[in-house]
Amino acid sequence: MAKVVLAYSGGLDTSYCLKYLIKNGFEVHTVLVNTGGFSEEELTAIEKRAYELGSAQHTNLDIVEKYYEKAIKYLIFGNVLKNNTYPLSVSAERVFQALEVIKYAKSIGASAIAHGSTGAGNDQIRFDLIFKTIAPEIEIITPIRDLKLSRQEEVEFLQENGVSYSWKKAQYSINKGIWGTSVGGKETLTSHLPLPEEAYPSQLQKETPEKVILEFEKGELISINGEKKSPAQNIITLENMANAFAIGRDIHVGDTIIGIKGRVGFEAAAPLIIIKAHHLLEKHVLSKWQQYWKEQLGNWYGMLFHEGQFLDPVMRNIETFLTDTQATVNGKVTVTLKPYHFSLEGIESENDLMNTQFGQYGEMNNAWTADDAKGFIKILGNAQMIYSQVNELNYD
Amino acid sequence: MAKVVLAYSGGLDTSYCLKYLIKNGFEVHTVLVNTGGFSEEELTAIEKRAYELGSAQHTNLDIVEKYYEKAIKYLIFGNVLKNNTYPLSVSAERVFQALEVIKYAKSIGASAIAHGSTGAGNDQIRFDLIFKTIAPEIEIITPIRDLKLSRQEEVEFLQENGVSYSWKKAQYSINKGIWGTSVGGKETLTSHLPLPEEAYPSQLQKETPEKVILEFEKGELISINGEKKSPAQNIITLENMANAFAIGRDIHVGDTIIGIKGRVGFEAAAPLIIIKAHHLLEKHVLSKWQQYWKEQLGNWYGMLFHEGQFLDPVMRNIETFLTDTQATVNGKVTVTLKPYHFSLEGIESENDLMNTQFGQYGEMNNAWTADDAKGFIKILGNAQMIYSQVNELNYD
Amino acid sequence: MAKVVLAYSGGLDTSYCLKYLIKNGFEVHTVLVNTGGFSEEELTAIEKRAYELGSAQHTNLDIVEKYYEKAIKYLIFGNVLKNNTYPLSVSAERVFQALEVIKYAKSIGASAIAHGSTGAGNDQIRFDLIFKTIAPEIEIITPIRDLKLSRQEEVEFLQENGVSYSWKKAQYSINKGIWGTSVGGKETLTSHLPLPEEAYPSQLQKETPEKVILEFEKGELISINGEKKSPAQNIITLENMANAFAIGRDIHVGDTIIGIKGRVGFEAAAPLIIIKAHHLLEKHVLSKWQQYWKEQLGNWYGMLFHEGQFLDPVMRNIETFLTDTQATVNGKVTVTLKPYHFSLEGIESENDLMNTQFGQYGEMNNAWTADDAKGFIKILGNAQMIYSQVNELNYD
Amino acid sequence: MAKVVLAYSGGLDTSYCLKYLIKNGFEVHTVLVNTGGFSEEELTAIEKRAYELGSAQHTNLDIVEKYYEKAIKYLIFGNVLKNNTYPLSVSAERVFQALEVIKYAKSIGASAIAHGSTGAGNDQIRFDLIFKTIAPEIEIITPIRDLKLSRQEEVEFLQENGVSYSWKKAQYSINKGIWGTSVGGKETLTSHLPLPEEAYPSQLQKETPEKVILEFEKGELISINGEKKSPAQNIITLENMANAFAIGRDIHVGDTIIGIKGRVGFEAAAPLIIIKAHHLLEKHVLSKWQQYWKEQLGNWYGMLFHEGQFLDPVMRNIETFLTDTQATVNGKVTVTLKPYHFSLEGIESENDLMNTQFGQYGEMNNAWTADDAKGFIKILGNAQMIYSQVNELNYD
Repeated sequence: MAKVVLAYSGGLDTSYCLKYLIKNGFEVHTVLVNTGGFSEEELTAIEKRAYELGSAQHTNLDIVEKYYEKAIKYLIFGNVLKNNTYPLSVSAERVFQALEVIKYAKSIGASAIAHGSTGAGNDQIRFDLIFKTIAPEIEIITPIRDLKLSRQEEVEFLQENGVSYSWKKAQYSINKGIWGTSVGGKETLTSHLPLPEEAYPSQLQKETPEKVILEFEKGELISINGEKKSPAQNIITLENMANAFAIGRDIHVGDTIIGIKGRVGFEAAAPLIIIKAHHLLEKHVLSKWQQYWKEQLGNWYGMLFHEGQFLDPVMRNIETFLTDTQATVNGKVTVTLKPYHFSLEGIESENDLMNTQFGQYGEMNNAWTADDAKGFIKILGNAQMIYSQVNELNYD
Repeated sequence: MAKVVLAYSGGLDTSYCLKYLIKNGFEVHTVLVNTGGFSEEELTAIEKRAYELGSAQHTNLDIVEKYYEKAIKYLIFGNVLKNNTYPLSVSAERVFQALEVIKYAKSIGASAIAHGSTGAGNDQIRFDLIFKTIAPEIEIITPIRDLKLSRQEEVEFLQENGVSYSWKKAQYSINKGIWGTSVGGKETLTSHLPLPEEAYPSQLQKETPEKVILEFEKGELISINGEKKSPAQNIITLENMANAFAIGRDIHVGDTIIGIKGRVGFEAAAPLIIIKAHHLLEKHVLSKWQQYWKEQLGNWYGMLFHEGQFLDPVMRNIETFLTDTQATVNGKVTVTLKPYHFSLEGIESENDLMNTQFGQYGEMNNAWTADDAKGFIKILGNAQMIYSQVNELNYD
Repeated sequence: MAKVVLAYSGGLDTSYCLKYLIKNGFEVHTVLVNTGGFSEEELTAIEKRAYELGSAQHTNLDIVEKYYEKAIKYLIFGNVLKNNTYPLSVSAERVFQALEVIKYAKSIGASAIAHGSTGAGNDQIRFDLIFKTIAPEIEIITPIRDLKLSRQEEVEFLQENGVSYSWKKAQYSINKGIWGTSVGGKETLTSHLPLPEEAYPSQLQKETPEKVILEFEKGELISINGEKKSPAQNIITLENMANAFAIGRDIHVGDTIIGIKGRVGFEAAAPLIIIKAHHLLEKHVLSKWQQYWKEQLGNWYGMLFHEGQFLDPVMRNIETFLTDTQATVNGKVTVTLKPYHFSLEGIESENDLMNTQFGQYGEMNNAWTADDAKGFIKILGNAQMIYSQVNELNYD
Repeated sequence: MAKVVLAYSGGLDTSYCLKYLIKNGFEVHTVLVNTGGFSEEELTAIEKRAYELGSAQHTNLDIVEKYYEKAIKYLIFGNVLKNNTYPLSVSAERVFQALEVIKYAKSIGASAIAHGSTGAGNDQIRFDLIFKTIAPEIEIITPIRDLKLSRQEEVEFLQENGVSYSWKKAQYSINKGIWGTSVGGKETLTSHLPLPEEAYPSQLQKETPEKVILEFEKGELISINGEKKSPAQNIITLENMANAFAIGRDIHVGDTIIGIKGRVGFEAAAPLIIIKAHHLLEKHVLSKWQQYWKEQLGNWYGMLFHEGQFLDPVMRNIETFLTDTQATVNGKVTVTLKPYHFSLEGIESENDLMNTQFGQYGEMNNAWTADDAKGFIKILGNAQMIYSQVNELNYD
């Protein structure tokens, strides 16, 4: 019997796929790749359901630390916010789920892989691109995309096949991982409606501002308020602290890989705080052109990552570049958490280039004289002065 | 007697310059270029003081509308936020003050121009670059930069020359224009201290959120809540509305033109709201690559503008590009003002490319089939698949 | 009877399509879009053959001047050489052929369009993207792509249907237009073999170098050796002059739109000479950053054009930008034609910024002093000096 | 007696400096940093002259291998041609001469450094920026720049001080290093005149084309025609081979650091051949986006290097990026040397992505079907189709 590995989440779509594949004669191995969005209880419940529906073997893979090490780290180094807004909460984890699923499929000698994506989104592309690059010989099966079934049809099929869970549709589809939670709903299918307060997973619980000190070493978040843990653990800690302030809500509008515009809500307190704090620290310790090129390459990295092109070799080159820039990104950033927003107070760093020994901006020039400044300006202005004289320009 | 035009603000530094120049035998014509930061009363008081100190002729030039038309408009088109933070509140207006001062100097046949900048900041460069490009034959006189005087020395010189105003130093130096207010103080000379609440010009007066509808036409803000005025007037209206919520405070850290790092606080509610709203609208109506190149050119425009290189001919080319991209940037953006922050609710536009006729992201593919998607992904993945096969890559 | 418009060239593939479509019940209207590669005799012969094969209506469209005005002009403004080598000889003309064909199809109310591209190249994409953007309602028929026929099968089909031309295969497939000729052959299917001398359409006829003076006005080639004609005519004149020297041969290797690498020979004397001469002139008359951004946008324009994305709205924005930069690109460039290569002698321009009034490079600084230079260098070096001091760097 | 280190070349300017510094009471240590442009005989003669003129200690430093390892290697990786023309023949070596000179000065405890640059060129900036970054405490002395002496005045001063060499001015000033030779003369001070044939150091000696096989490993030139030597030695070997064909002449026109335009002739056969061969190999083995970003970063690297900003930390980051991209740049490139020019025949590489197993461009699609191609095109065209429909565009 042909083995197929199904990326399984326990929801209606992948439960349909599981039953459908069994009925079509496959030995189905279900796998859930956890990027930080599932609790132990949820994982246990999903495993139970998988076996109830007929999974030959269910496996939960925890890749949180690996996902940090191979992806989130670079998203922080690059200050990656798609369209200046979105920390790639879903897109990055899809790619890493795909990488684990295909690796698992090869390890058990599966001849096919299945997933529950529709034909209308980015996820199908993120999954399939990874699968086809790493194992072009493995077949990809996508019942939801192929059959374009309605929710009702899926439920009926499952009932006909003896599965009678109640599949009540949540009002908002939620997708949670360590790097943020996406929220889709009827409002995000329009251009003009915001998500209501209650659609967001975290609700305001604290009103009194709190200071948090984030410590970075070579660009990585190594401690919070002096307590050292792994960067991935620090992200989780900060997320919990900031959720009480309902920080990090926004809506991402962007160009999908399939050419239509897409809109999705998200809540990503820790990612936004970390990226903004890291960026502020970089403004103090990096040269102007380091910042310029980090922004270019970081944004490009985010774009290709978002579009599932994670295995383009330029991505490895950019990761090398970004890592190399982080040698001096050391120090502490103080952040104040407030209801619905946060502010950056300032930084302390031994690599701080804002060093009063050489001059105080606008106040005192220790390292040069007025005449130096005049000479500087004269020569800096040569090109424009010559252009203006040669072309007899009149500026008004 | 040689005529000199002095850029005069009524403060200690430029009052010193005025008296100093008169004592050195110049006929001093004072000029104040108002970019939106001075009230009628302030202008009258400054004019009075200028004459008291011996100005041969004082002139107030109001360039708010012109400044919008020739600068702010493009900063909005380009969504220009220096280092993703700062809307060029001071830098842009310095350049336009310089342009007006040099034009005025030429119109009255002055042989010199004077300004009160120190040798430690960006402003000296913005002024001098413009002056030298447009009129290299006019001498530039900068007593504060040349003499490196202390505040006390300036006061004493003025007293010795019969000027006995009380020059009590404000705790925070404030610079106000239509595109934002900068705030400097002892904290901004450090890397770690934030400005205190009270340093900011606007204080929280409203707690209850308010919705505002901003209407754009070809990228320009043509109405607020349905009321049409000039874009410059709309900026002022919005600023007043948002100030009641104490929106728009932040600190800019950046590389100065002279190579040191600088840090300055600012409050710029209207600029931040308008740029974010405009940017959101663009995400709906522009193509992916239009957005990409707008960001490239907009950021570059902001950088050169900030650094006083406004007269580089590439700046005119970029303005032409940005204007050309705005043809479809039409529609309404709904913004909610809240204490200390704001949120973007959504947009309505006839040019909205998020159009359900062709597909709903993640939900329904009307314009293509599952097989189309599979073909798309297969060919999209060719290059990476081939790279992976040829180089026998192993991703783990 | 359903009307179909067939892009017809008179070769085996499109002749097969013509007969095939007739047999399948279509009223076939053949159209040939001439971008400068066909002589009057060739056009007459093709028309004759079209009617012999059963075309309901054959039309030859001459778009040379339009093609220059809407495409080549910008390729010159942008100095566009794909991968620093290839002047888009084929890619640009395919796009314009597609634009004319779809326009023609709409004008006669055709319900379908047919072309003879295979499924292995870029041309299918250039054609189809244009068709689907402008008239998504018109069906696209591509027998060669769909049936994957061998040459022999096509010949047999035609013979069975009474067409008995001799279709002897040329050793090299040649594609000629005003902006260059592509040459494909068995060598270009390898990575290591060059095309033999005789594969190139032009052969060396002159050995004695000849000087040519190219005059540009706002970036357009308005005269050759003082003789004024339309820019398109000037291209043809120059091509004829340079062909006698066998100038402009090279091989383009690039990433195709479908993800594989492709290799094609070409001969494009006039395009290479014009672009290099135009570029040299720009080095004298444009600012450093104008050149920088022109290169960025020009290369991008070339890439999207090459990949058939000509109708992305950013292309119009880039054209506007490029046009705006050409205001001062005026003057004469002297070129010497030699066997197999050419050299640029120099330029003369009223907009030349290399103006000895201000200084002679390396020799004499008229516009500034040694002290100015020292002040300039001191401040220019501030950032690196501070970085070096703060980080205690040791360079060795 | 204060020690000064003088960068000494044996020419009139630096001989003047040597005598001038001695007369002003310095103990002058002369140093010549050889980047490949001096023969043993020349070095001996210069050393002899240095001592005759009164040098306290003369040192010749050979840095050819180091210069390759720390600079030229990256210029090849980045395919760096300034303005698409100039391989930084002089600019790169000046920077490395400065680095060696300042290191030497520190090693002997010198309190000052002297060089013979004028105030009108780029070299003064390259020297001083390096000196000031690494040792801001060491004084820089530049007699030629400060005194703006004429050639005649220098000769007279030397004669007055007992130095009576004949300083006959060469018609062309030649600057030779391993990465090319620059040629300045009266023609390069104009915009319109080319250098005459005889101004170039190499003259045509061979007419019959010769094939050369260049082998690259991780982007470095490891052998020529199968003979393995160090990359620096291979450059010299290739230069000698190509000089016989008078290959590699051109004129560079560019924006100087001081804002004027500059023009200089050069001959750089090996650099041009190596860069073009390396680039061709990369077209076969790198992904599209690797090539794109290499071009961006390579050009920027070249610009900052050219402008003396070699110690900006972004330069180290770019070097790391470029090195990382070279992992698959392995293989052989065949080049044919011809009179005055060369052609690239093709490449052979195990990393070649042009692999017929997956498809032959334009001929055969093995890895996908016609339907795949149609699906690809449909979805690739979605964005433009939607834009066109929403905005009711009419393309003509």
